Amino acid sequence: MSDFFLRLRERCEAARTNLCVGLDPVVERMPKSAGEGAAAVEKFCIEIIEAVGESAAAFKPNIAFFEALGTDGWSVLKRVLAAVPMDVPVILDAKRGDIGSTGELYAKSLFEVLNADAVTVSPYLGRDGVEPFFKYSDRGVYVLCLTSNPGSADFQLPGDLYLRVARAVASWNAHGNLGMVVGATRAEHLHGVREAAPEIPLLIPGVGAQGGDLRTVMRSGAARPLHETLINVSRSVLYASDGTDFAEAAAREAEKTRLAALAAMEA
Amino acid sequence: MSDFFLRLRERCEAARTNLCVGLDPVVERMPKSAGEGAAAVEKFCIEIIEAVGESAAAFKPNIAFFEALGTDGWSVLKRVLAAVPMDVPVILDAKRGDIGSTGELYAKSLFEVLNADAVTVSPYLGRDGVEPFFKYSDRGVYVLCLTSNPGSADFQLPGDLYLRVARAVASWNAHGNLGMVVGATRAEHLHGVREAAPEIPLLIPGVGAQGGDLRTVMRSGAARPLHETLINVSRSVLYASDGTDFAEAAAREAEKTRLAALAAMEA
Repeated sequence: MSDFFLRLRERCEAARTNLCVGLDPVVERMPKSAGEGAAAVEKFCIEIIEAVGESAAAFKPNIAFFEALGTDGWSVLKRVLAAVPMDVPVILDAKRGDIGSTGELYAKSLFEVLNADAVTVSPYLGRDGVEPFFKYSDRGVYVLCLTSNPGSADFQLPGDLYLRVARAVASWNAHGNLGMVVGATRAEHLHGVREAAPEIPLLIPGVGAQGGDLRTVMRSGAARPLHETLINVSRSVLYASDGTDFAEAAAREAEKTRLAALAAMEA
Repeated sequence: MSDFFLRLRERCEAARTNLCVGLDPVVERMPKSAGEGAAAVEKFCIEIIEAVGESAAAFKPNIAFFEALGTDGWSVLKRVLAAVPMDVPVILDAKRGDIGSTGELYAKSLFEVLNADAVTVSPYLGRDGVEPFFKYSDRGVYVLCLTSNPGSADFQLPGDLYLRVARAVASWNAHGNLGMVVGATRAEHLHGVREAAPEIPLLIPGVGAQGGDLRTVMRSGAARPLHETLINVSRSVLYASDGTDFAEAAAREAEKTRLAALAAMEA
């Protein structure tokens, strides 16, 4: 098992949590009191991190939301990442995917410039497209398998492409540092994914705002250590309140989800 | 036809070229005289743009190479883009792909922050993942179909996924602003792609350093306007010489490729 998954497992066990908190900050949805522009996004994210830190197994900033801030986006993201407690790993949601020689550069950007503990990558370009990421054997790499959006029915489900991706990921896992993204909105397919790639930990978005069912998801991983069924919530936590109490509301929502996930697993 | 493709067609016809010059700057491969770090990359790219401008139908900077420069990467890229002549469109090679709500942010970053004329996107997430891009009806969106790397055999070829992507792109093209990326290293499949999506212009990397055959590629588009068979070359032009004459060498190589493509088309 890679350093990343060891750290993640340790965090999950120590804090009894499998909750990954997605950082998808949109100025329009942030409380007015947070202000406007890049500085407001930075402050909002840091307050959220401080508020929900105890419930979180990991944080997952999505780089798109920071790039949209303009040329300062990466600097803002770097400062937000610096606010994450040392014992809570960061999964940078970037969904990159390019040919091998270019993948090297993306891997360098995410792992060296931004110092992410783990990243998400897209499998469309095949093995040489994701290999530059998994060569960083101390980091984690979550490969998109079956995503939570309606469009996953366009190419991922037909011909069981998602299962072929799952089997490929299992075969590429020489460093024990690979995971996969499977949407909670496709919970009926979780069992098949687990069968195709039994040793691959999952990162599961789509509970919360997107409507995935927490109980079905947690039951699929009932016999497994917590870090193999990492539940991601973003909007339902970040925007739990649009008032000045946004941080406390986020903390309450995160803690509620943490407990609900544990209860569903043990039910 | 979208504003982007009108502009591209105009440029191709006016300059008798279908050559897209990829900007993939790697400090290690740049001539020593260029210096080191982000400033050297900026200067190198601007000199290349000035040198090869007459042969180029478009420029295609790959954002990975700029992100790898650190938090200044986007500012460097912005200044490089500003050096591109007004009548030569810019295709920003970003291969982004995320769920719809996040795709909106990526589209905003690339089209509004960086003001790209066109972008490349990945189809793995399906329609709602790429829709935020093609809603910018005056811009161009090249969807990855069959890429030039060895890994395209992992998921794109099996079950003819690339053809399903091609047919989907054809069906999504309400604004006439969609194109597709098909690698020259897979030239034997070009005919099938053209049949599946007859009206979709192609961007074709993989000639040059990657070894794709220019004649096969150009014959596949022989009866079409130049802009529907856009050939991309990057390394063979950028690194035509590692001496102080790199700009003239790049200009010679670009012009040679431009003429070879025209000759192959008319042969």
